[in-house]
Amino acid sequence: MSSFDITEHSHRRFNQLLGEWVLVSPHRSKRPWQGQQETTEQDTRPQFDPSCYLCPGNVRANGEKNPDYPSTFVFTNDFAALQAESPSGTFEKHGLLQAQSERGVCKVICFSPRHDLTLSDMETTEIRKVVDLWQEQYLELGALDYISYVQIFENKGSVMGSSNPHPHGQIWAQSSVPGEPAKETEQQEAYFQQNGRSLLSDYLAIELEEKTRIVVENDAFVALVPFWAVWPFETIVIPRRHFGHLGQITDEEKDAYADIMKRLSSIYDKLFNTSFPYSAGIHQSPTDGKDYPGWHLHMHFYPPLLRSASVKKFMVGYELMADPQRDITPESAAERLRGLL
Amino acid sequence: MSSFDITEHSHRRFNQLLGEWVLVSPHRSKRPWQGQQETTEQDTRPQFDPSCYLCPGNVRANGEKNPDYPSTFVFTNDFAALQAESPSGTFEKHGLLQAQSERGVCKVICFSPRHDLTLSDMETTEIRKVVDLWQEQYLELGALDYISYVQIFENKGSVMGSSNPHPHGQIWAQSSVPGEPAKETEQQEAYFQQNGRSLLSDYLAIELEEKTRIVVENDAFVALVPFWAVWPFETIVIPRRHFGHLGQITDEEKDAYADIMKRLSSIYDKLFNTSFPYSAGIHQSPTDGKDYPGWHLHMHFYPPLLRSASVKKFMVGYELMADPQRDITPESAAERLRGLL
Ligand SMILES: O=P(O)(O)O[C@H]1O[C@H](CO)[C@@H](O)[C@H](O)[C@H]1O
Ligand SMILES: O=P(O)(O)O[C@H]1O[C@H](CO)[C@@H](O)[C@H](O)[C@H]1O
Repeated sequence: MSSFDITEHSHRRFNQLLGEWVLVSPHRSKRPWQGQQETTEQDTRPQFDPSCYLCPGNVRANGEKNPDYPSTFVFTNDFAALQAESPSGTFEKHGLLQAQSERGVCKVICFSPRHDLTLSDMETTEIRKVVDLWQEQYLELGALDYISYVQIFENKGSVMGSSNPHPHGQIWAQSSVPGEPAKETEQQEAYFQQNGRSLLSDYLAIELEEKTRIVVENDAFVALVPFWAVWPFETIVIPRRHFGHLGQITDEEKDAYADIMKRLSSIYDKLFNTSFPYSAGIHQSPTDGKDYPGWHLHMHFYPPLLRSASVKKFMVGYELMADPQRDITPESAAERLRGLL
Repeated sequence: MSSFDITEHSHRRFNQLLGEWVLVSPHRSKRPWQGQQETTEQDTRPQFDPSCYLCPGNVRANGEKNPDYPSTFVFTNDFAALQAESPSGTFEKHGLLQAQSERGVCKVICFSPRHDLTLSDMETTEIRKVVDLWQEQYLELGALDYISYVQIFENKGSVMGSSNPHPHGQIWAQSSVPGEPAKETEQQEAYFQQNGRSLLSDYLAIELEEKTRIVVENDAFVALVPFWAVWPFETIVIPRRHFGHLGQITDEEKDAYADIMKRLSSIYDKLFNTSFPYSAGIHQSPTDGKDYPGWHLHMHFYPPLLRSASVKKFMVGYELMADPQRDITPESAAERLRGLL
């Protein structure tokens, strides 16, 4: 019997940020695919679409008119999943039915007035304005006494549930710390208590030494396919310097953040020669007033595509009932992405 | 300010089986939908398809010929994510990169020789044969010394990643206990230690008293929308009697299992007048040789559709980065399903 080789044999990898495992089946993508094909997005859009509720000057569902904004624009989601006015309270029955009210704010952020762009098409100086807005919003929402966590994210592409191609992201800020950042808090704070350095600083040092999972880097940020990636071409963007949230980022780092976003999104678009769909999100320390010395800000990119612009990875039966599972190794995914630089 | 009402206000519900929260936004489905539409499955299929690798008598990808099976048929997946022969071993670097080899078996189960059927079209006596096979496979695979967990599941419909409409399910059996059943083990065993009864027995008693989330029941099983449901029309099928795995089910209960499957899947098909897609899976006690007195077998149905046969719920940005989120209450979902009886 040959000896265990992570490029050949099925195995589980441990996700240090979540404290969970992922099943890796290196050669499974060899199987033929006869299943669903996604329709690829039409790639010619007008600069301005009179029927788009995000374009400047247009009227939204609630009757409000968008300003004639020159760069970014933020407003409260007209169909918010969380509301600031929800009365507080709990619900309980026999110990087994338990609910608690949740207050919050949902916002929409337009990245550009241009209907036809995506982050990868925008100038780095324009993306820098998006980073500024993320910072401003994190600080403003995080300062509200009833907000414990601010989730900034983007759903890009109709395959990721985006209902409007106008370049935009969202922010959901709420009174509890949700499950994913709560797990990351536990893992990062425990590591920091034990080692006196952040988990992601030490992890990044290993990745920079190994090089096999690095995709692209600049002075302040590194984008790589994490050792424990779940999605086929998942990446994580990690700042070299250890800081917990956007309130602590320097001006130079903001420029570098815009630069790494531009480079990474351009690489993604080249992979399958399509405007690459993904959900991306910034994880940073909770805003519940507690101290989080171990938190190291980072951004996740979860793209669904596996084989081509039209064939995605389905996270279904086994993945929903048991564990996340992937069909190619993170190392081979990183190698392909790096080759597009 | 009005007082907290779970039918009106955004709130979090606690999933007792997983020990996790879900965000519920009762009125969010009022928002208009301009996003992706799924193509609905064509509903006329031949009884036999010469190009289907699951139909009786046809040749599969690896050159093997399917037998002329009269009811069910099971074989090892030609593109298995887990292999019995994987060498055992671990991989570790600087404490932060951790992997371990995983052995296992992946099987495919054909529910019927008829290419044009689904479980809801089959006779209850035919579904009973599927239940028999599930039992047989759980016992056979679970008895292997290197198998600690047997996951039986079905991906139905191309929107759930099924690449072949021939009625079939899968089994992935492996040497570790995956994350989801591991969490359920923790919650159920802790509850049993404390209360001397299974979590799902006590939970089911509350649901039978409240009635608002019940969908359909028979002598031995109840199908209901759990208080903590994530997917819009998610259900859980719970046996009235507390037993941990299919090795402990009685003959009468097997008939009742087939009956509840027939009823529930027929209700689902009526909801949007379509062959209803879902991922379904049986959770039962691990086969690692330990004792699990708190385990109470159950089956989850996770259907993606939200508004119609072509509009699904997207579990994307917020859900991937933060917490699962739903747009209608479990009570209103159960009411709609019950109305189709
Ligand atoms: O085994 P199949 O049907 O080829 O594959 C399907 O189910 C698997 C188990 O849930 C998933 O990993 C795949 O992404 C999905 O397409
Ligand atoms: O807010 P949108 O773009 O209407 O909605 C999209 O993102 C939300 C947050 O991830 C999801 O809950 C929805 O299912 C998805 O369609």
